[in-house]
Amino acid sequence: MACEFRLRRLVEFSETDLVGIVHYANFFRYMEAAEHGFFRSLGLSIVTRQVDPPLGWPRVHAECDYKQPLYFEDEIEVQMLVKEKKSKSLSYLFRFFRINSSPVVEVARGSLTVVCVTHQDGKMRATTIPKSIADKIEPASRDLLEARWV
Amino acid sequence: MACEFRLRRLVEFSETDLVGIVHYANFFRYMEAAEHGFFRSLGLSIVTRQVDPPLGWPRVHAECDYKQPLYFEDEIEVQMLVKEKKSKSLSYLFRFFRINSSPVVEVARGSLTVVCVTHQDGKMRATTIPKSIADKIEPASRDLLEARWV
Amino acid sequence: MACEFRLRRLVEFSETDLVGIVHYANFFRYMEAAEHGFFRSLGLSIVTRQVDPPLGWPRVHAECDYKQPLYFEDEIEVQMLVKEKKSKSLSYLFRFFRINSSPVVEVARGSLTVVCVTHQDGKMRATTIPKSIADKIEPASRDLLEARWV
Amino acid sequence: MACEFRLRRLVEFSETDLVGIVHYANFFRYMEAAEHGFFRSLGLSIVTRQVDPPLGWPRVHAECDYKQPLYFEDEIEVQMLVKEKKSKSLSYLFRFFRINSSPVVEVARGSLTVVCVTHQDGKMRATTIPKSIADKIEPASRDLLEARWV
Repeated sequence: MACEFRLRRLVEFSETDLVGIVHYANFFRYMEAAEHGFFRSLGLSIVTRQVDPPLGWPRVHAECDYKQPLYFEDEIEVQMLVKEKKSKSLSYLFRFFRINSSPVVEVARGSLTVVCVTHQDGKMRATTIPKSIADKIEPASRDLLEARWV
Repeated sequence: MACEFRLRRLVEFSETDLVGIVHYANFFRYMEAAEHGFFRSLGLSIVTRQVDPPLGWPRVHAECDYKQPLYFEDEIEVQMLVKEKKSKSLSYLFRFFRINSSPVVEVARGSLTVVCVTHQDGKMRATTIPKSIADKIEPASRDLLEARWV
Repeated sequence: MACEFRLRRLVEFSETDLVGIVHYANFFRYMEAAEHGFFRSLGLSIVTRQVDPPLGWPRVHAECDYKQPLYFEDEIEVQMLVKEKKSKSLSYLFRFFRINSSPVVEVARGSLTVVCVTHQDGKMRATTIPKSIADKIEPASRDLLEARWV
Repeated sequence: MACEFRLRRLVEFSETDLVGIVHYANFFRYMEAAEHGFFRSLGLSIVTRQVDPPLGWPRVHAECDYKQPLYFEDEIEVQMLVKEKKSKSLSYLFRFFRINSSPVVEVARGSLTVVCVTHQDGKMRATTIPKSIADKIEPASRDLLEARWV
């Protein structure tokens, strides 16, 4: 059972905007990259070919609070925590750290709620998360989820 | 005094992902495009060259609720409403409508909070929204802001 | 028979990079938007649902020459010209004009070669462009294709 | 003196399009990421703060030939080779390999020409590449540059 994943990456040039900082929409790409890394760390893929019919994980809610900007070539660590596991949905918390500054700074914090669906006849329908997936995932502790900004 | 802006656009190919729908992070680009269109409709630009020192509008909060997917070549209308006007920040509400379906469907709803800053010595500092800008903007009515999803 | 399409758009904030100009990769998105607008102007869609099996148009070559940068809120016109029509492929020429400067400046010029394919058993296979599509498209004149940069 | 850099990455969800493959414009982001990694490998940054006035490297030409698609979670290696070094410009060759298939497949090949400029009074002006940078870079051998597609 896993409740956490950490993703490291370098801010790329094409992720910045004319202000010289990471465009705010790109934090949602970082979140997703961490979510998908989490799935891979469990031997799964978010594009689930393991089950039939194939599953999808559309987002029903996404949000982010921004405290400080990120710049080109900043090293970031995204800490993903499982916030909630329901029968048909998962919620994640994401903490963004700039790790090339000393001390490390938490620059943003976001969350995502995704629903497990099957695609049938061109329609998405919410479905119970398969046991083979659900059994690998557990919510993080309150301590982790309610940690103060650093 | 304005409290609303409407932006129309067609979903582009490069905005979709492998599921065949608009990638969720792109809704935040649509919000921003509406916000900037709102500023232009007031004779302003979000990249403010009218005042000295130059202003910026970094985002401190962004969120979105997704009800239905958008597909390639869908026609969308983004309705932007001013939710709140404070001395140093603005909040917007965004409603996303797919207008090529009949009846029109509200597929998503988001919000954004931006802070007015000046850039000095490479630092951003929150500052009072200049009167020349603030005087042009007013919050939308409760009725508009609390409209039910269609 | 058509050989040309013109697309107008405003440079968006999220298309710029830290240098303050449109990121060079985005010119390829503009090209594609013009190509798709061209198809729509013929009553077609690049995502062809009109024929069975469905067609696709993967790119086999793309290139762009950049003369001048584009900035946020620049108004651009992309002129798309059909350069070549073969039995299984099409080539396009794209000229990018900044039209909010006086005189108008041609800031970039690109081209694209796309192949008509069918998707079968998860494989793409080059196929003859259906007559219903090919009959609507013709190459532009040499004069248009070899016009000097303005 | 260096003439080569290799970048590895995994195809991300947000880089795919509705066809289920990496959107063709994203190959230009991959090229740039390799170019910037090359600069970092030399102790430099493409956003040059080491010299005064600051330098920039706008692209004057970019192109790519596509042989095979890339899919979500494909592992790719981008091999960047210095093709040409002139007093004010550099050209790079990029070979894209899908390394999670056996045998490894070269899926695309691209090139980029960048010019060294200074930014003065809001204008870009081509300038000689500083010796401290030029001395670290040399063109790759013909053998490497003319290697056959694998």
